[in-house]
Amino acid sequence: MSYLGEIGEFGFIERIKATFSTSSPLLLQGIGDDCAVFKGREGWHTLVTCDAQVEDVHFKTGLFPPFLLGRRILAVNVSDIAAMGGLPRFALLSFALRPELEEKWLSEVLRGIKEEAERFGVEVIGGNLSSIASSLVFDVTLIGEVESKYPLLLRKNARVGDRVLITGYPGEAACGLQIILEGSQEEIVRFERLCRRCFAPSPRLEEGRVIAESGYPCALIDVSDGLLQDLSHLLDASQVGVVIHLEDLPLSGEVQEFAREKGIDPFLPILSGGEDFELLFTAPPWLAEELQREIQRRTGTPVWVIGEVVEERGLRLYREGKEVSIDRRGWNHFGRGRA
Amino acid sequence: MSYLGEIGEFGFIERIKATFSTSSPLLLQGIGDDCAVFKGREGWHTLVTCDAQVEDVHFKTGLFPPFLLGRRILAVNVSDIAAMGGLPRFALLSFALRPELEEKWLSEVLRGIKEEAERFGVEVIGGNLSSIASSLVFDVTLIGEVESKYPLLLRKNARVGDRVLITGYPGEAACGLQIILEGSQEEIVRFERLCRRCFAPSPRLEEGRVIAESGYPCALIDVSDGLLQDLSHLLDASQVGVVIHLEDLPLSGEVQEFAREKGIDPFLPILSGGEDFELLFTAPPWLAEELQREIQRRTGTPVWVIGEVVEERGLRLYREGKEVSIDRRGWNHFGRGRA
Repeated sequence: MSYLGEIGEFGFIERIKATFSTSSPLLLQGIGDDCAVFKGREGWHTLVTCDAQVEDVHFKTGLFPPFLLGRRILAVNVSDIAAMGGLPRFALLSFALRPELEEKWLSEVLRGIKEEAERFGVEVIGGNLSSIASSLVFDVTLIGEVESKYPLLLRKNARVGDRVLITGYPGEAACGLQIILEGSQEEIVRFERLCRRCFAPSPRLEEGRVIAESGYPCALIDVSDGLLQDLSHLLDASQVGVVIHLEDLPLSGEVQEFAREKGIDPFLPILSGGEDFELLFTAPPWLAEELQREIQRRTGTPVWVIGEVVEERGLRLYREGKEVSIDRRGWNHFGRGRA
Repeated sequence: MSYLGEIGEFGFIERIKATFSTSSPLLLQGIGDDCAVFKGREGWHTLVTCDAQVEDVHFKTGLFPPFLLGRRILAVNVSDIAAMGGLPRFALLSFALRPELEEKWLSEVLRGIKEEAERFGVEVIGGNLSSIASSLVFDVTLIGEVESKYPLLLRKNARVGDRVLITGYPGEAACGLQIILEGSQEEIVRFERLCRRCFAPSPRLEEGRVIAESGYPCALIDVSDGLLQDLSHLLDASQVGVVIHLEDLPLSGEVQEFAREKGIDPFLPILSGGEDFELLFTAPPWLAEELQREIQRRTGTPVWVIGEVVEERGLRLYREGKEVSIDRRGWNHFGRGRA
C-alpha cells in the first residue's frame, strides 16, 4: 500500500495531470504553469490561479499578526499573476473556519486582504465559507488578464544561451522565518527587514509587467518553493539545463549578517528558501541587459543575472570555479520536509 | 468579545460584502448570487464559483465512498453554474490533504471527479495542493460561460405575480443522509434511491439551460441549504414575499414511506433538507407552464409550481387552508446546527 507522503506533492500533481486531459479550443495553458490561461474578452487572455494558506503549515495563528496574514493570503496569489506578466482583477475567497474564532481577529484578516486588494487593483467578487473542526484554511482564487498581443511567459520558454535572471534578494524571507520562529526579541528588531520580508512578501507585479511588455517569450516563474526547486521546474518544462556561479547570486547585507551570526552558509537560504516571491526568468543576452535596466528604472527593484541556460539537462552550481552540490532543494508538500 | 459562531455564516458574508466594494466595468455580478459574472470572450459572459467539501462537515471519510465523494466535489459546483443557466468549462482543484492518505483512496476520488467532469464537459486546468494535519478540504473553483444575449438569471429577478417552481423531488437527499447515518443495512437497500440522491446528487444543468434559453430574466437559485432557506435568499434579493401551499410540494413515494416509518412530517425534509441541488426559480404564469413542459420534455425531470410571489415580504406557508409556521430553515455554517 502506498501513501500520499511517499508520492509527494509533485508526484501527485503528475498523477492529476495524467488523469485529466484537455482539448478545449478555449484553453491556452492548463496544469503546469503559474496560472491557467484561457480565451478572454477581446484583446485579452484570462489568467486563473489558486493558492491556500493552511494553519500550522503556512502560518501559526498565535505568531502571525492577522492583518499581515490577510495581506499574505492575497499576495501569494498576486505573485502567480505576476509570474505570467498579467494584471490581477478578481478574487474569490474560500475559507474553512472554526466557529470559535474571534470576530476581531477575522476583521483584521479581512482588513489585510482589503489593503492588499486595493494596492493591486483586485476586487473580491465571491467565495465560499465552511466550518472546520481544526486547521484554518484560507484559499483564494485569483483571476487576472494579460494582453493577447503579448506571447505567454511560460516556464517552457527557456532556450539554450538565455541568461537566467532574478529580481530582488531571494533568501531573505527564509532567514526572517527562522528569526520569527527561533529568534529573540532583540533579533526580531535588529533583523526587522528580514522578518518583514517573511510576514509581508511583496509580489513583483510591476516587474512582471515590464517583462511582458518586452513582447519577448521569456520563461518566467515566481520563487515560492525555493530558488533551486522553482528553477528546476522551469528547466524541466523547457527541457534544458543551467550553469550557476554562486558568486553571481545577490547577497543582501542582512542575509550576510544573519548567516555569519548563525554560522550557516549564506547561499543556503538563497538557494533553498522559499516564499520570497521574487521573479525568476530567462531572456536572451541582448534582452537581459535591457530588462535589468528597465525593471530597475520603473520599479527600483534590482535584477541580477545569475546563470546561463545550457543544453545539458540538470542544474550545475560552481563556487570559486569548482562544481558543488547542494541537497536542500526547497519545500515539497507531503514529502518529508524538504526534498 | 464576539465569535464567528455568533455572527453565523450569513452574518459573516454580510461583513465581507461590506468590507469590499467593486467598481470594475468588467464585472456584471459580484458577491450575492450562485456565481460571480464578468465580461468574457465575444458573445459570452464568464461565470465563476467555488465550493468546498470539508471532512466531518460535508462528508465522513469512513462512510463516504471516495469515488462518490469525487463526483460530489465537482457536482456541487456544477450546480452553481446550472443556477446561472450556464455551461461549465474549467475546474481548478485546491486540496488540503494528510500525508498519510492512501494513494488508492485518492485515486478513487480523482476517478469520481473525472467521471463527473466528463459527464458535464468540464476540463481540469489547474489547482493547488497543500498538506494539512487534520480535516481534509476539497475546494473546487469552477469557471463557466453563459451567452451574453440572454439576461442573467439572478436571485433578484423575482416579480410580484410570478409563479415559484422547483425541479424534481427536494428532500430526498436529506432522508437519504439520515438513513446513511442511522439506518440499518436493510433500510439502506430498501431506500437505495434516497441514499443515492444523498451520495450522488445530480446537478440540473440541462434544466438550467432550458430556463436560460427562454430569454426571460427568471430568478434562479439551486437548493443547497434547504428549500426554505434558499427561497428566503431569493426573496430577500428580490425584496418580495411568497405564499406556499404545502399540498403543492412534490412528495415522492420514497419520502412518504420514509416519513411514515420514522413518524415525521413528510414536508419537513422537503422544506428544510438541503443538498438536493434541485433548481428553484420564478417565472410569470404564461412562462411557468411553458418551462414546466419544456424541461420535462428535454430532460425528463418533473417541474412543480409550488407558490406565488407576493408583495408582502416574508414566507407564508399554508396547510389545508390554514397558515402554519416552521422552525428548521436549513443549514447555516458556524451557527448552532440548523438556524
